[in-house]
Amino acid sequence: MQVSVLFSGGKDSSLAAILLERFFEVELVTCSFSVLPVGDVAREAADKLGFSHRVVQLESQVLEQAYELLIQDGYPKRAIDHIHLAAIKSLANDSDVRFIADGIRRDDRVPVPEISQIRSIEDKYGVSYISPLKGFGRVVVNELVKEHLVIEEGLSESVIKADYETELRELIRIRAGEQRINELFPSHIQSHVIERKRVSGKELQTVCICD
Amino acid sequence: MQVSVLFSGGKDSSLAAILLERFFEVELVTCSFSVLPVGDVAREAADKLGFSHRVVQLESQVLEQAYELLIQDGYPKRAIDHIHLAAIKSLANDSDVRFIADGIRRDDRVPVPEISQIRSIEDKYGVSYISPLKGFGRVVVNELVKEHLVIEEGLSESVIKADYETELRELIRIRAGEQRINELFPSHIQSHVIERKRVSGKELQTVCICD
Repeated sequence: MQVSVLFSGGKDSSLAAILLERFFEVELVTCSFSVLPVGDVAREAADKLGFSHRVVQLESQVLEQAYELLIQDGYPKRAIDHIHLAAIKSLANDSDVRFIADGIRRDDRVPVPEISQIRSIEDKYGVSYISPLKGFGRVVVNELVKEHLVIEEGLSESVIKADYETELRELIRIRAGEQRINELFPSHIQSHVIERKRVSGKELQTVCICD
Repeated sequence: MQVSVLFSGGKDSSLAAILLERFFEVELVTCSFSVLPVGDVAREAADKLGFSHRVVQLESQVLEQAYELLIQDGYPKRAIDHIHLAAIKSLANDSDVRFIADGIRRDDRVPVPEISQIRSIEDKYGVSYISPLKGFGRVVVNELVKEHLVIEEGLSESVIKADYETELRELIRIRAGEQRINELFPSHIQSHVIERKRVSGKELQTVCICD
């Protein structure tokens, strides 16, 4: 069974992939509008993790709709939710994809797809959607990240990432200037995966091959 | 890191333990009021899975309160939620326990603890609560169960299990008769673990030990 994990290069989607790898063949998928080379940024992180990776182009119309939502609302929740759902639908529409996963945690406020929307997509396309971290709170996610990943963390304006926010911020910068970004996006800590730790006993057991 | 997984002997809590075993030392914990020997039933299933197991006695007052809720409501949701929360609190109060997990799935309706209650317990006792299957829908849980477990399934009145319902049903039988059980509990499919499959490549890799 293969699972396609929506991948931003950050700690949550990386940990989601690591949680699933024992049960599925994992491929990481980064969605892009080609406003910035986010696919390249994500691919580099995917290589460090040791998973296969591909970039999926989303229709520019999705980014335009997200832009409109962001300008209307003055904050990014609906815009990010909109892109996330479009990414899930885009994968669901791929006949080779049966399992779709993401890095959403219990305590996340955005993106958080409505369960009714998810069930509709599952029924319509015959796929299953998985959020492996949905039952994990912040403390335990941080413990697992510390054990399995080397990450860099910093404010969202300084850390290079391949999440939905990255290209939306760039579109705001192009159309409305740097200052508008700070008005629309709350500054928050982002993470980017530098390396995967493969040193613990359990980790080594998982990858060992006996003669 | 050790995690204490609330364990009924059914497929969901078994799968939750299997999902966590690569990241934690897993101990299975079955809560009992000693109305029925549910601890023994659970221990047998735990042995098949290969995890350590212990039984925790809950105060009989908890079962009495659940009984009252069940009689008041005419259906078991609040009663089961009440016992589940008492089980989590009981583990949280154990100074050796830092991580508590259960087998709740995305589509479960009962037990489903309120997130506010969970956060209170986490803050008060300094523990983390994990529901590893919370982001998994029915289809994907069934796929994973099929791959990793041999189970028997049947109607709740015929399958021997060690969940909260088992002893609550027995208390109703003693106090109000067999017929009352059928009025208060909707008949539903239960599962009981018979065996763990250890045949897939990934599974073998995880347990192999190289010289």
